[in-house]
Amino acid sequence: MEVNDYPSILLSQAVHEMASLPGVGKRTALRYVLHLLRQSPEAVEAFSSSMLRLRREVQYCSRCHNLSDSAVCPICASTKRDHTTICVVENVQDVMSIERTGQYSGVYHVLGGVISPMDGVGPQDLQIESLIERAQEAQEIILALPTTMEGDTTVFYVYRRLSQRYPSLRVTQIARGVAVGGELEYTDEITLGRSIINRTPLNT
Amino acid sequence: MEVNDYPSILLSQAVHEMASLPGVGKRTALRYVLHLLRQSPEAVEAFSSSMLRLRREVQYCSRCHNLSDSAVCPICASTKRDHTTICVVENVQDVMSIERTGQYSGVYHVLGGVISPMDGVGPQDLQIESLIERAQEAQEIILALPTTMEGDTTVFYVYRRLSQRYPSLRVTQIARGVAVGGELEYTDEITLGRSIINRTPLNT
Repeated sequence: MEVNDYPSILLSQAVHEMASLPGVGKRTALRYVLHLLRQSPEAVEAFSSSMLRLRREVQYCSRCHNLSDSAVCPICASTKRDHTTICVVENVQDVMSIERTGQYSGVYHVLGGVISPMDGVGPQDLQIESLIERAQEAQEIILALPTTMEGDTTVFYVYRRLSQRYPSLRVTQIARGVAVGGELEYTDEITLGRSIINRTPLNT
Repeated sequence: MEVNDYPSILLSQAVHEMASLPGVGKRTALRYVLHLLRQSPEAVEAFSSSMLRLRREVQYCSRCHNLSDSAVCPICASTKRDHTTICVVENVQDVMSIERTGQYSGVYHVLGGVISPMDGVGPQDLQIESLIERAQEAQEIILALPTTMEGDTTVFYVYRRLSQRYPSLRVTQIARGVAVGGELEYTDEITLGRSIINRTPLNT
């Protein structure tokens, strides 16, 4: 249902802007905007300027292309991280997800997407060339891309490019299998099949 | 799950601000913020300034307390509306909802909430005194308040105040009954009971 007839042009504009956010309809946008209207002018100023400053000042790390406040992000600048292991991810959220696991001490490389001919995204639109360059200092490249057709295409493409240039470089991809806490009964057959093919030895 | 370890303080601040909107968690806030980050600087500027201008410049209509770009809102300023019928609503959204029906040609009075002792909202926190004053020029007051305990309390309070001051003023409330398109079977018993008590004649 369309929300029209706003009593105020300013309100209508603010709702229009808010409704440009992903998944936000006019009704939700109105709720957000009326919430802001109930806050102090200083609070709305803080809200506004925060978005503006982010867009104007945030940078992309010159090495890994993650978001950063400086030319090199804290992870790439850290001396505590293993700079010879590079984990390749689709986007910034994925870096944050892997960081939250606390299981990874290497560095990252953010592609900025995956190859998707349907969406007109080719290898040249992604940070693949810079990965190939960076990889010469690496000992292992971990491909942590989504387990979708686009993700698989990207894994295949990146792996081929890396192995052509550095035949002895170790390139891995993250394990695919039954989720921890998952019941076999409810796991889809492709995942379950993969988990059998890629079984890991208990007696190492 | 908490989203922490943002790669950028600017990003973290923007997410924090976005997550202050009602019903928006950190994860959704991050999605909104990363969306803004993909837009042009001009687009983010438009987004930001729209919220800021709304908060700074929007006014409340001096008669009906609806949002307005000017001292008197377009509805109160209109000569085509019936200014002797005042529809009392809880908030701005309700004005928009009733306007969308196209069934009402009178004016409004926005209380700015309903009486709710639990939330510390008393009559003095609402635009009730200004309604009592305005009502002296009215022929009918329609109470279109939510059918909740708080709404009913407010209806009772406003009705008592109005009838004390203007014993001959017509005060009505919107009909409560089975929703159009609703099955009796799935209508709650209180609503169904009310719809029988307040039945309307077909042969008028």
